[in-house]
Amino acid sequence: MKKTILVVAALALVLVIDGVSQTPPAPKHRVVFQLTEPQGPAWDSLIAHVENMRTAFAKDGSEVEVVFFGPGLNMLLKKNTAQEEKLKKLAESGVTLAACQNAMRFYNVKTEDLFPFASQVDSGVAELARKQEAGWAYIH
Amino acid sequence: MKKTILVVAALALVLVIDGVSQTPPAPKHRVVFQLTEPQGPAWDSLIAHVENMRTAFAKDGSEVEVVFFGPGLNMLLKKNTAQEEKLKKLAESGVTLAACQNAMRFYNVKTEDLFPFASQVDSGVAELARKQEAGWAYIH
Amino acid sequence: MKKTILVVAALALVLVIDGVSQTPPAPKHRVVFQLTEPQGPAWDSLIAHVENMRTAFAKDGSEVEVVFFGPGLNMLLKKNTAQEEKLKKLAESGVTLAACQNAMRFYNVKTEDLFPFASQVDSGVAELARKQEAGWAYIH
Repeated sequence: MKKTILVVAALALVLVIDGVSQTPPAPKHRVVFQLTEPQGPAWDSLIAHVENMRTAFAKDGSEVEVVFFGPGLNMLLKKNTAQEEKLKKLAESGVTLAACQNAMRFYNVKTEDLFPFASQVDSGVAELARKQEAGWAYIH
Repeated sequence: MKKTILVVAALALVLVIDGVSQTPPAPKHRVVFQLTEPQGPAWDSLIAHVENMRTAFAKDGSEVEVVFFGPGLNMLLKKNTAQEEKLKKLAESGVTLAACQNAMRFYNVKTEDLFPFASQVDSGVAELARKQEAGWAYIH
Repeated sequence: MKKTILVVAALALVLVIDGVSQTPPAPKHRVVFQLTEPQGPAWDSLIAHVENMRTAFAKDGSEVEVVFFGPGLNMLLKKNTAQEEKLKKLAESGVTLAACQNAMRFYNVKTEDLFPFASQVDSGVAELARKQEAGWAYIH
């Protein structure tokens, strides 16, 4: 009896300690950005901020998603060829560039209007909430 | 002596495991919004963002608070009749619309100047911090 | 053998319980602010918001950092004498005023161009992420 309790206690301890001391999943830093501006310097700032952060976190690793919603959806439209190279480089380096489907409906934007490296989320604000709930930092 | 330690260990384990595995309180999603713009498209965006998020989280349930402070207090003033119907609908669906009392003092706004469905908080920024401390996501 | 397990179990319990029930470090509230605006009412708002929050949290205590990056770095330049007194008062009350070194390089700002009470961080956005990872609330 005593033995059984001891074994159960030891097992439970292992589980608890494992659960408590569990290291966060790699990469260490997870950050979601919001882009809601229709144009202008906010676009250049976004790219500079993501690049600077990736550099600062190069050693630890980082997982980054940018959510484009409201008038900010505009930045992901194929027609904005001036942004294409920079955004493509971010996407190729592993940054998720997510278009809000609510904004797509509102502005009548189709999948084929978006850069091919863009992904989609059902709701930009819901996505920001979900990421924060999952422990991601949020930057606007 | 051994027995006592075992019992204490078992009880402590139960407490620890209970604490660790505790499920989060329903509703699942809790989000605090900031509204600081004195007028313009930010007002429409706010309402659209809250509505879109509520829809996206309809299945899981969501608790939402919007904190109006600084020049954003303006949106809760009774005189803005164009906003009344939409804000009232949000309030009636359970969204808390909170006016910052620091902003009320600064702009000399009285309780009777606010929509009757508005609530109040001592400090808008402190409220945003408290909500995040309590695990709410933050969206600006 | 039994004794050893018991001792190990007891020690582990103490560690686990200590880890789980550990009270958050004083002060109770920790908040990081973002300042990215090059000028205008956002500067006055920032100071008002920090002061109001410090007042609201006076009883519990608060640790506050403001991160100045992008065009917002401008607010920490010595030449902005109109801001000096208010910022100095914040700094002397324990608020950290941190200049982004990426912005410093971009705008060719040297340490001697900054108010002497300003500190520096390698990357403003990385700093915002690190603080949130450490449990700080974020306000923009």
